[in-house]
Amino acid sequence: MNDAEHIAPLLRPEPGEVGLVEPRDFHYAAPFTFESGQVLPGFTLRYETFGHLNAARDNTILILHALSGDHHCAGIHSLADRKPGWWNNLIGPGKAVDTNQYFVLCANVLGGCQGSSGPSSLNPETGRPYGITFPFVTVRDMVRAQKLLCDHLGLACLHGVLGGSMGGMQVLQWGIEYPGFVRRLLPMATTARESAQGIAFNEVGRQAIMQDPEWHHGDYPRGGGPRVGLAVARMMAHITYLSDASMDRKFGRRKKDTADSAAYTFDVQFEVESYLRHQGESFINRFDANSYLYITRAIDHFDLTAAYGSLEQAFAPVQAESLVLGFDSDWLFPPEQNRQIALALLRAGKRATYAQLPTDLGHDSFLIESPLLYDLVRDFLERGHD
Amino acid sequence: MNDAEHIAPLLRPEPGEVGLVEPRDFHYAAPFTFESGQVLPGFTLRYETFGHLNAARDNTILILHALSGDHHCAGIHSLADRKPGWWNNLIGPGKAVDTNQYFVLCANVLGGCQGSSGPSSLNPETGRPYGITFPFVTVRDMVRAQKLLCDHLGLACLHGVLGGSMGGMQVLQWGIEYPGFVRRLLPMATTARESAQGIAFNEVGRQAIMQDPEWHHGDYPRGGGPRVGLAVARMMAHITYLSDASMDRKFGRRKKDTADSAAYTFDVQFEVESYLRHQGESFINRFDANSYLYITRAIDHFDLTAAYGSLEQAFAPVQAESLVLGFDSDWLFPPEQNRQIALALLRAGKRATYAQLPTDLGHDSFLIESPLLYDLVRDFLERGHD
Repeated sequence: MNDAEHIAPLLRPEPGEVGLVEPRDFHYAAPFTFESGQVLPGFTLRYETFGHLNAARDNTILILHALSGDHHCAGIHSLADRKPGWWNNLIGPGKAVDTNQYFVLCANVLGGCQGSSGPSSLNPETGRPYGITFPFVTVRDMVRAQKLLCDHLGLACLHGVLGGSMGGMQVLQWGIEYPGFVRRLLPMATTARESAQGIAFNEVGRQAIMQDPEWHHGDYPRGGGPRVGLAVARMMAHITYLSDASMDRKFGRRKKDTADSAAYTFDVQFEVESYLRHQGESFINRFDANSYLYITRAIDHFDLTAAYGSLEQAFAPVQAESLVLGFDSDWLFPPEQNRQIALALLRAGKRATYAQLPTDLGHDSFLIESPLLYDLVRDFLERGHD
Repeated sequence: MNDAEHIAPLLRPEPGEVGLVEPRDFHYAAPFTFESGQVLPGFTLRYETFGHLNAARDNTILILHALSGDHHCAGIHSLADRKPGWWNNLIGPGKAVDTNQYFVLCANVLGGCQGSSGPSSLNPETGRPYGITFPFVTVRDMVRAQKLLCDHLGLACLHGVLGGSMGGMQVLQWGIEYPGFVRRLLPMATTARESAQGIAFNEVGRQAIMQDPEWHHGDYPRGGGPRVGLAVARMMAHITYLSDASMDRKFGRRKKDTADSAAYTFDVQFEVESYLRHQGESFINRFDANSYLYITRAIDHFDLTAAYGSLEQAFAPVQAESLVLGFDSDWLFPPEQNRQIALALLRAGKRATYAQLPTDLGHDSFLIESPLLYDLVRDFLERGHD
């Protein structure tokens, strides 16, 4: 047996796995005007692709990420990488989003901080990060930038557009903005209109960041900034992604092994505290606080009813077929808000289905292993398009 | 008409109102041992009373406050005072808790910051606030201190004990700790066992405070301290007291009048943001950050199941009759957790009733005008005791 035979199996992905994937950058070099009227001379989107584009260039599935997600939705970045992309359970050869059939594309949103242009990008005019001088970003801006990437890749159309939470908002905007380009919309765990409670949680997160003395009005060096505020924002937001029942099952009132000898302390005592602190600490190492401000603000401003007069009017141009998914215990974007999307699509005369998944895992249910979810997604993507 | 006749009507309370009330201090001058084993040489409880103690000294209703409440549950502190006590709608002459019949007593909890001994009290040994050298406080410690106040006032028994949220926890502890002293228990919007989600929200609030550079491990001057962290903690907690529906009705996505010209900004745009910022700012002027740590920790530790082996065993000594109230849209202490209290009381062979009030106003429902709540409270307090 020679060396090649030893190495080859390592390089071949596990069955059903995407395997190694490499991010790429799309540089758009023409001026881009944001919804706010502000202009950038160009922008970058970092993206990953999985599977192969067919000859007709019509087999693309566009995956859209949520607030804290990124372009890395499946596969691994190195053979030592133990943490695959965030939707790896859904995407891969033979999986619900089957990379043997589809060309899967996912980009970090405009305004993000994982390689796409955003407030942590260097302003060529100053040689320093834009900070809060970066143009305001809306969900529509994110979608318009993604369309430029699709054009760059020479896609004929999108076979399907999938996303949960803020990803679902982008799905809806895609159907409205580029109706002739999109065949199937699959928004889940989302809303057509951010609620007062949603804005409230976003605002507390922003206040935690902006009131942190290290924020300096957004003008902080890369790697620095309001780490405490960002961690607090993340800890709080993380609670809203779970459910009372799932937290009770996962942590209950269990105490840390180290807690017994110090029963009366403000240090970590309960496992749920330890988990949240870990969530906060790992987030500050991968996320930019200003991006958190920009993206939560984009979510706050998302209101298709106000933008188009009514939800029916918003959906009037839609040509795609839609499957809207709500999740029972999601209290951030409750099932009813998802059902309202499907009802408005139907009232607007579109082909739409609503399905509500039984789960007690809260908002994050859309990211969690679920054979029922997989079946719904697979069947919907395979369904013939008129 | 002489001067007295001019003034007299002003001094006479409005019909149905308690009118002017003056806080008093109870100084307990003997050593008090906390559940933690720590000892204070004495403590103070600030309290208010309403109505008159009868000759038998058996007509007292003890009111127990929640996390951010205090002893001032009814009436006004001066004729210019526009904000009556926090449960003024429930307590007064002819009201559900009728001060013509009952002697109503309410004290700021041990560990609090409105006049009772707590971390902001001066340590006589150092001449500076205790900060986090103040002994750890549990719900049981709060109740034991209240009992010493009752003894000081020469009460024969308590006709009823009422409270919501953390107040309800104290109600349960009263029934267990002093069974012969209490005739009626009325816990509402509460739990017998703080949930993982509840601990999680408390922990985020504490982290916001303790990670604020102004906290200095709890050693800050009176009036100083982690104001930013405390405001963030309060803003977040305030969301948990409301409901999706009530926030939608109260604020929806309405924008501030001033917001139009600056649609793309991180300043206040939505009314709900302005409301939350106001909640945070007004809280830091009346509450001590260390007290917030102590009281949330007392709530975290409240778990009658663990403390007594089971809820039935916890309730074994109870002699009082109980009415437990849950509120439909309360997601902080959901109705089911309240119902479980009543069921456990019944399984333990006690007289208990559970009532669930239809409301979409969330956890704070127990503080809000409700003829149904008034009727339930009034009838329960008037019911004959065997």
